[in-house]
Amino acid sequence: MEYIKDLRWKKGISVKELVKQMYDVGFQATEIGKAGELIVRMKKNKAKIYLSFTSNMVSSGLRGFFAQIIEKKIPSVICTTVGAIEEDIMKAKGEKFIKTTFNADDMENLEKGQNRIGNLIIKNASYERFENTMQKYLRQIYKKKKEWAVSEMLKEIGLKLKDKNSFLYQAAKNNIPVFCPGITDGSLGFHLYIFQQDRPDFKIDVVKDFGNILFTSSQDEKKGIIALGGGIAKHHIILATLLNGGAEYALYMTTSTQYSGSLSGATTSEAKSWGKIRQDSDAITVIGDVSYTFPLAMIYALEKLHKERILR
Amino acid sequence: MEYIKDLRWKKGISVKELVKQMYDVGFQATEIGKAGELIVRMKKNKAKIYLSFTSNMVSSGLRGFFAQIIEKKIPSVICTTVGAIEEDIMKAKGEKFIKTTFNADDMENLEKGQNRIGNLIIKNASYERFENTMQKYLRQIYKKKKEWAVSEMLKEIGLKLKDKNSFLYQAAKNNIPVFCPGITDGSLGFHLYIFQQDRPDFKIDVVKDFGNILFTSSQDEKKGIIALGGGIAKHHIILATLLNGGAEYALYMTTSTQYSGSLSGATTSEAKSWGKIRQDSDAITVIGDVSYTFPLAMIYALEKLHKERILR
Amino acid sequence: MEYIKDLRWKKGISVKELVKQMYDVGFQATEIGKAGELIVRMKKNKAKIYLSFTSNMVSSGLRGFFAQIIEKKIPSVICTTVGAIEEDIMKAKGEKFIKTTFNADDMENLEKGQNRIGNLIIKNASYERFENTMQKYLRQIYKKKKEWAVSEMLKEIGLKLKDKNSFLYQAAKNNIPVFCPGITDGSLGFHLYIFQQDRPDFKIDVVKDFGNILFTSSQDEKKGIIALGGGIAKHHIILATLLNGGAEYALYMTTSTQYSGSLSGATTSEAKSWGKIRQDSDAITVIGDVSYTFPLAMIYALEKLHKERILR
Amino acid sequence: MEYIKDLRWKKGISVKELVKQMYDVGFQATEIGKAGELIVRMKKNKAKIYLSFTSNMVSSGLRGFFAQIIEKKIPSVICTTVGAIEEDIMKAKGEKFIKTTFNADDMENLEKGQNRIGNLIIKNASYERFENTMQKYLRQIYKKKKEWAVSEMLKEIGLKLKDKNSFLYQAAKNNIPVFCPGITDGSLGFHLYIFQQDRPDFKIDVVKDFGNILFTSSQDEKKGIIALGGGIAKHHIILATLLNGGAEYALYMTTSTQYSGSLSGATTSEAKSWGKIRQDSDAITVIGDVSYTFPLAMIYALEKLHKERILR
Repeated sequence: MEYIKDLRWKKGISVKELVKQMYDVGFQATEIGKAGELIVRMKKNKAKIYLSFTSNMVSSGLRGFFAQIIEKKIPSVICTTVGAIEEDIMKAKGEKFIKTTFNADDMENLEKGQNRIGNLIIKNASYERFENTMQKYLRQIYKKKKEWAVSEMLKEIGLKLKDKNSFLYQAAKNNIPVFCPGITDGSLGFHLYIFQQDRPDFKIDVVKDFGNILFTSSQDEKKGIIALGGGIAKHHIILATLLNGGAEYALYMTTSTQYSGSLSGATTSEAKSWGKIRQDSDAITVIGDVSYTFPLAMIYALEKLHKERILR
Repeated sequence: MEYIKDLRWKKGISVKELVKQMYDVGFQATEIGKAGELIVRMKKNKAKIYLSFTSNMVSSGLRGFFAQIIEKKIPSVICTTVGAIEEDIMKAKGEKFIKTTFNADDMENLEKGQNRIGNLIIKNASYERFENTMQKYLRQIYKKKKEWAVSEMLKEIGLKLKDKNSFLYQAAKNNIPVFCPGITDGSLGFHLYIFQQDRPDFKIDVVKDFGNILFTSSQDEKKGIIALGGGIAKHHIILATLLNGGAEYALYMTTSTQYSGSLSGATTSEAKSWGKIRQDSDAITVIGDVSYTFPLAMIYALEKLHKERILR
Repeated sequence: MEYIKDLRWKKGISVKELVKQMYDVGFQATEIGKAGELIVRMKKNKAKIYLSFTSNMVSSGLRGFFAQIIEKKIPSVICTTVGAIEEDIMKAKGEKFIKTTFNADDMENLEKGQNRIGNLIIKNASYERFENTMQKYLRQIYKKKKEWAVSEMLKEIGLKLKDKNSFLYQAAKNNIPVFCPGITDGSLGFHLYIFQQDRPDFKIDVVKDFGNILFTSSQDEKKGIIALGGGIAKHHIILATLLNGGAEYALYMTTSTQYSGSLSGATTSEAKSWGKIRQDSDAITVIGDVSYTFPLAMIYALEKLHKERILR
Repeated sequence: MEYIKDLRWKKGISVKELVKQMYDVGFQATEIGKAGELIVRMKKNKAKIYLSFTSNMVSSGLRGFFAQIIEKKIPSVICTTVGAIEEDIMKAKGEKFIKTTFNADDMENLEKGQNRIGNLIIKNASYERFENTMQKYLRQIYKKKKEWAVSEMLKEIGLKLKDKNSFLYQAAKNNIPVFCPGITDGSLGFHLYIFQQDRPDFKIDVVKDFGNILFTSSQDEKKGIIALGGGIAKHHIILATLLNGGAEYALYMTTSTQYSGSLSGATTSEAKSWGKIRQDSDAITVIGDVSYTFPLAMIYALEKLHKERILR
């Protein structure tokens, strides 16, 4: 039996020590503590980790943190939405995203060419320069071959970026595939379409890429899910592991709840009914904004894995 | 200046009368009332309506309601996720989904081959029969031609279903395109992949379909968005209207909030900063589960449109 | 086994028919359908209904609906917060609350003496006139006796209001007690304090009122809870029924979830661990804004109870 | 203009350094960073801090953290609900609260006499021993005088507890008043009622305590609000500062949102329309579970205040 313990600040307290104390606080603090330990178990038991995140997280400063954990080979497979691809490339090319407030004046933003995402801003000019970058990249890619599975194309692009804080770059460099099942759902979709207009033999093959994610693991391998946020990226890694026998470990971090039946808010218990995660699996759901829940749990795990010399 | 009014029940009260009263109640009741009026304005002013919904809504009984409003030509363009496609086909083929509770025993569900979605269940057997249906359909489709944009394939499938409660059937029959930018993110993705293994010239062209959604309207036409839930389906119709100058009307119905910067919870004010919806547009966000918020607002609009002889 | 059924609009559809259909839709629509049936069962089985609501609901147009169901003797005991008392009196005295939007300009509101509550506004002038009303009422009350339990004072005030849409009036007239365990937490607290300054023998006895709510029922009577929203009002009726053996029926309608351990979001399952609601009780939680979830479920119940001649 | 920056883990990273980085991450991470800085400004500018929290937070391990910051004289006034009083006393008397999961078996809990609060458990036995403690304390208190304002009684009790992790003890010892406007809404209400039955001259005066909270500050003093969670405790400190001219600083930490018009989810912008917080005030809302949002922001502030020798 474990008891609730009173939290106490000590001067200079480390994140690791705080998360350790949080484990005994109760409510979501405890779930974060459990999440940290779950990530440690995934790595210790050599599970292949499938990491999904949504594009707003790459808009945020989590992007560099994703790059860092990819460099340290925490995940083996990545899945995201196309906005994440676009914004990672923009940032690698030097674009700066601006801080604002959730109740900023959006008419003023519109006039200034500032596109708001919560309390962040991306300038129109960043999108315009991105268009030029993409058309150049697509020309280079097309020269190599005409038909591309999405993850192949993303690797090719990733290698060009040469930015240590780019998740595409770190993934490409470390041979970690990046999947994006909804590749046309963004300005990149438009750029692909324009490019294809003049080169009808240029094809993006999403069906082939389904095979690619399917073969990222086997029934025999242990699999872990870290799903940050919901949507198609979360669903896709769950699907890929389900078709390989289900995940032994699952960490869901989300702001959604199960009450409207969305997959974004679906519980790990529900996932067990599908065989998405195994009956006996080790699963935690943390409710809260990933911008702080994930760094807390992940840093705790990094510190422990480092200490135990498991971290690369 | 409008005042809050006390709600009173009258025996036999109609939905139309209740929503009319709710308009004066305050909080989300008022927003539902506004949403009903907004849909009326969209139709009166001949806006082309882009409707998005997520797959859980098609798991639910909203599916038949979507089919009904498509038959009545409320939306001009539909966008959804692949689960919605799968489940609409299953139901058209006679599969029954079962009611359960949110805290059902998921180990028992697993043993019984029952996959839970909130308080609903889809049986494994439904998925198995769906696989046979799909392989047959794909063979028929492949005979016609080798390369398909997603919406073309969905129209072809829709025409086969001949079920008045199927949204795919009603859309196909009424020449309303259905888009699905993440077509591989579900069991259909697996079926497409298996099918392609033996017929490498079978191609699903998502890039071409981007052009198709782009040409569903022009800068000159009035456009309206009805986004039910979030995710890729919501984002895709916003993108399509943005690239055509932005929407004059926008109705967002969601359980998400803006605080973690997700598109699912993004406000219509935020959308204005992007030009996604026009500066002077007419926009409402209703917070709540679409399973009841949408029928309330939509039925109110149907009654009014019917009375004014605008409804087909 | 119950199946999901497709929702279909019929011209002129009644609320009763819609809620009946919603019962088969899934997600929260189904829970609303269940909630309606649960209220019917409570009344058929002659349970004493404890109804709690929060002050924002009385700010809204639900106030008149509460008065109406009190008039029809649906609840036997009422519990709320002091804001609800204040605003019911204001409205009975003719004050009008104004509709606005959730993102209204609050600096402008401040300048205009407009206090915002979500998308509603109460004018400063309404509070000023309320002060005069209250001081007059307190003088009359004080003449009768010096020490008052809260519910006694509220009955005395209720009888003065003579407004059919006032819940205090309908409760007083129909001998249904209104409890308010946090009576000082509002402008009324200030008025009581000022009044007591000149009359130190004027006492509000909250401890005595605890006895009063305790004796509203016995272990032998069947008890039902309808808790709208959370906070002290919800907790207090749960406490009162717990001390009398727990409730046989419980309907929670809330926007909160259980993940931070608040009572506002606590589930009916959690309540069973306390004996707050009986192990074998009949309990439903509906997630969503009460401004529409409650009218839907309650009107369905009113129609059925009327048809079965149970409604007074 | 401030930019989003990539978050990077450094081995042994401190909480202070992480929160500093989070300030540049975006979304709620940024709001936590701002919250930390806001608390620093409140203290530097010698604002009187009004701190409210709900009882579930005292069920959790935050209780000891509250005691610690009270010892360090961070808040000047405390307001909470009666459950917090009860559980602080229980813990001071040695009761242990147990960790469980959010989906624990509540029938089993019931049988074992385990009352669940989210993922925590309080045993029936703890409540039974609490009853004895309380009756003893009430006898001692009654001997001193017959009539008590709530905060006077809580000070008297606090002094008896002699537990450094007790917030009541630290508050009493450091002359920081604790208010509880809903003192009867818990098992303590029952104990007060039983006690009063035999001693009808024993009175708890909530009206007098309204005066006490009113005189905790003046129009001239700078006031700051730290409202953790919602409900009556949050409302009461806002009311107390409003009646003294409004707060210059406000930090709201909550899981509620504004969409149903509840005070628990009301924004700081809404508060400005009431004059609750001043027009030019410095206000932040952090959305998320207080069990981790508050320690992050507060520890950041403690570290900075310590470094600048402002912390006692």
